[in-house]
Amino acid sequence: MSEKNEHNSPLAVVLLSGGLDSATTLAISHSEGFTCHAISFDYGQRHKFELRQAALVAQSQAAASHRIIRIDLSAAGGFGASALTDNIAVPKDRHDTSHGSIPVTYVPARNTIFLSFALGYAEVIGAFDIFLGVNAVDYSGYPDCRPAFITAFEKLANLATAAAVEGRGQYRIHAPLINLTKAQIIRKGLELGVDYSITHSCYSPSADGRACGHCDACVLRREGFATAGVNDPTKYA
Amino acid sequence: MSEKNEHNSPLAVVLLSGGLDSATTLAISHSEGFTCHAISFDYGQRHKFELRQAALVAQSQAAASHRIIRIDLSAAGGFGASALTDNIAVPKDRHDTSHGSIPVTYVPARNTIFLSFALGYAEVIGAFDIFLGVNAVDYSGYPDCRPAFITAFEKLANLATAAAVEGRGQYRIHAPLINLTKAQIIRKGLELGVDYSITHSCYSPSADGRACGHCDACVLRREGFATAGVNDPTKYA
Repeated sequence: MSEKNEHNSPLAVVLLSGGLDSATTLAISHSEGFTCHAISFDYGQRHKFELRQAALVAQSQAAASHRIIRIDLSAAGGFGASALTDNIAVPKDRHDTSHGSIPVTYVPARNTIFLSFALGYAEVIGAFDIFLGVNAVDYSGYPDCRPAFITAFEKLANLATAAAVEGRGQYRIHAPLINLTKAQIIRKGLELGVDYSITHSCYSPSADGRACGHCDACVLRREGFATAGVNDPTKYA
Repeated sequence: MSEKNEHNSPLAVVLLSGGLDSATTLAISHSEGFTCHAISFDYGQRHKFELRQAALVAQSQAAASHRIIRIDLSAAGGFGASALTDNIAVPKDRHDTSHGSIPVTYVPARNTIFLSFALGYAEVIGAFDIFLGVNAVDYSGYPDCRPAFITAFEKLANLATAAAVEGRGQYRIHAPLINLTKAQIIRKGLELGVDYSITHSCYSPSADGRACGHCDACVLRREGFATAGVNDPTKYA
């Protein structure tokens, strides 16, 4: 049984990157009746602009709180070897993102680390529900976006924590987008009133935050809006 | 197949707190032929003295490297609600540490977070072996020190990472102390030449680093040396 707030709504921790998927996930967690505490990570990503957008998304959806957790891995060399954090070129204009191998934008163990922090935070505030916007359809081939990974983390969470072991509740890792196409995600979000103009997906934005339009994230996003048949509010460079 | 160094020794990442258990674990990983990269975490622990000792232990055992990863959770409220990080009194003189409930020194999701960082770091450097000194016998009842937790994390690691999914290797989480008593750990370490005088276990040391002698960690350590029948080199306050 999770803690409830004064309105008797169960608490959830929602991973919020500021992108289209996590903004939709936050809206879904709200629509399921949770009081949502959003967390974002400052992990040295090149597209740090997304953190400002995450704050705007949390505010526009009236999340109960939004916290940015700083992860300093510069000393560890961890999270290196990725085009999202290092000086490796972000790939452009790949319309087949199911290209058979894991791309250079993969960040080692990122979702494992993010979910671990979310779990610790959930245990501290008394939440048992953790939402994240991973997707196994229109995605970039990351291993830590697959259903088997989510299931394994949920199992781990229920072995790892005093709250679960002492029977105060069972953790549930919610990945409500995991089987949706990008177009389905966008339609779902629009139904729930998500303002996609303030979300940010681009891996390689300009200094003023305009999307490049050509990285994997931009390609998936553009094609999603086109397939959904709705206006794409993204500001492209 | 993991990366090997110039001497053809496989790489390992070893979690090193600076305590008796992790110092022994580092010695065991060396004795098994690994080139060992030690990592420690600065997570706002009250007993920060242990980080200095971790550096001494790494140096005395000639680890290939030692890195301290700073985790700033002050903004997140995470890792709170523990006597190791907050203003909660550390319990004293409990000789029955199998006291049926998880103590206030439990830190929410700590080993999950530590192992997640170790996994990311291992993937970056090309290691597939991660060692940690958890123990399920003379321990304090933490859920994330049990064999089932270790098994679940190992399974997760092999689903979470590009290195495993692309078949470059399988991660192994080694917990060589998990079924040993404290006395057995000490005897094993002495066999391997561990200098316990530079290790630190106390949760509540004096300003000059002397052990209190009364917290759970001190009680377990003292009784371990007594049972092993060897000299306890710990400097008590």
